[in-house]
Amino acid sequence: MEAAVRDFTTDQSCMALNTVTVRKQGDLQAIIDACLRHKIPAIVPWREQVAELGLRTASRAIERAGLVVPGYCRGGMMVADESRLGEARDDNRRAVDEAAELGAKCLVLVVGGLPQFSRPGSAPSKDIGAARALVADEIARLLPYAVKCGVRLALEPLHPVHAANRACVNTLGQALDLCDAIDQTGQGGLGVAVDVYHTWWDPDLANQIARAGAARLHAFHVCDWLVPTRHPLTDRGMMGDGVIDIPRIRGWVESAGYQGFCEVEILSDVWWARSMDDTLHACVRAMREAV
Amino acid sequence: MEAAVRDFTTDQSCMALNTVTVRKQGDLQAIIDACLRHKIPAIVPWREQVAELGLRTASRAIERAGLVVPGYCRGGMMVADESRLGEARDDNRRAVDEAAELGAKCLVLVVGGLPQFSRPGSAPSKDIGAARALVADEIARLLPYAVKCGVRLALEPLHPVHAANRACVNTLGQALDLCDAIDQTGQGGLGVAVDVYHTWWDPDLANQIARAGAARLHAFHVCDWLVPTRHPLTDRGMMGDGVIDIPRIRGWVESAGYQGFCEVEILSDVWWARSMDDTLHACVRAMREAV
Repeated sequence: MEAAVRDFTTDQSCMALNTVTVRKQGDLQAIIDACLRHKIPAIVPWREQVAELGLRTASRAIERAGLVVPGYCRGGMMVADESRLGEARDDNRRAVDEAAELGAKCLVLVVGGLPQFSRPGSAPSKDIGAARALVADEIARLLPYAVKCGVRLALEPLHPVHAANRACVNTLGQALDLCDAIDQTGQGGLGVAVDVYHTWWDPDLANQIARAGAARLHAFHVCDWLVPTRHPLTDRGMMGDGVIDIPRIRGWVESAGYQGFCEVEILSDVWWARSMDDTLHACVRAMREAV
Repeated sequence: MEAAVRDFTTDQSCMALNTVTVRKQGDLQAIIDACLRHKIPAIVPWREQVAELGLRTASRAIERAGLVVPGYCRGGMMVADESRLGEARDDNRRAVDEAAELGAKCLVLVVGGLPQFSRPGSAPSKDIGAARALVADEIARLLPYAVKCGVRLALEPLHPVHAANRACVNTLGQALDLCDAIDQTGQGGLGVAVDVYHTWWDPDLANQIARAGAARLHAFHVCDWLVPTRHPLTDRGMMGDGVIDIPRIRGWVESAGYQGFCEVEILSDVWWARSMDDTLHACVRAMREAV
């Protein structure tokens, strides 16, 4: 199986940078410029950064730099009470519009946890089952709009540590069940984003990656799980610095037919404190040596 | 379903105290005395606390107090490299011996994560699959000894946030698969401990609790999941203070036939900073109002 894996030791043409990795070191324009310096051919921007630069300006800057946009971060936070549901729906359609304008190959969806965290102001609830049912409804509602705009939706299962406040979709199997229920034929382009940080612990991961196949695998994110982890959101590690067997998971993903970008997404107070060039240099090196 | 649930509002005869909840406020003797003051009829002691008092002394003190011992914390940490495997096996047989001496109804197993964390000194590994295979082998090896000693083993799936350093068994389904593989008939008494903290996020939890049934359900632990969680190990909440729908999960557990103790296990810097009586008073009250 591992023999089929692409060789990243000398070829970084499959590397993408998720801009959150250096979000504290500069704005989107500075990150675009840095991608060129470090020969990173693809970028996955966040909405806040795009909004700061202006959508048109951002889109033109990325195009002028010749960068591919394999994904856009992010839509979601779909769980809300009645009073906030309209806001959530509008927000997600805008995210689709922006993804289309940027030429992004997919819009990543972090679906939201309980309503009081997903859309603050919503009435508090402890019913994660209801949140999950609502997510299914809301994705089904958003999908036709995304199809019309030519944007694929990528559900990202998040680590169960984030179940309450960020995403009630917590395993790849659960995400694929949603895909099968909402887009059985696959014609809607509904798929998943597999992040090693969120999924590495899952005893069923290899099976579910095989089940997903190339048609449902829209994105593959890498970073590492540090021991100890000082913060569940902002203490991710550089690839190779933690305990995840990343090459093995990449082997499963590529054996399932995935040939897309390998996206570095590191939320880390440690790496945010370094310079843009230091952090990107480390990313490029870790892609060669530990992915 | 919920109509079948036992009424805890006026009856605390099903309450058990896991001694870790007040581990910083006093030794095991002090905790035993406090259980009597607060009319808590059952205690689940930790090995360190028993060792500190001396096994015989602890056993007699618990018996003299008339406390039931529904469980003993804990065996496990079975993942080790060759150099540490003998030590792990000896340690687990001793844990079984101690459980038998205390008259504990089960020995809780926290199976261990990767070998370098489970048994420090072991060679580092990133192979969680190998860790899981080893756990299956080691439980199968320990089980006949536990049967001989009259101690039931209770596998505790731990939240995936602990997969690397504490337990590579992370879902109830995975734990039950192990039970079925190792003790198909159930005659070995192999079962599980269900802790709401570790399992509440699991989309398959209701199904797996029903699958477990009374024969496999050896323990039920309660506390709560706080948002935000400041530390994955030592920031658990008092029941009712977090986001877990505890009554719903208890409903599932009791509908599956579980009639055992409901064990309060709160690892919390906040509650450890309060007095023994304050913390236990809050536990008793939360059992009535939020469980």
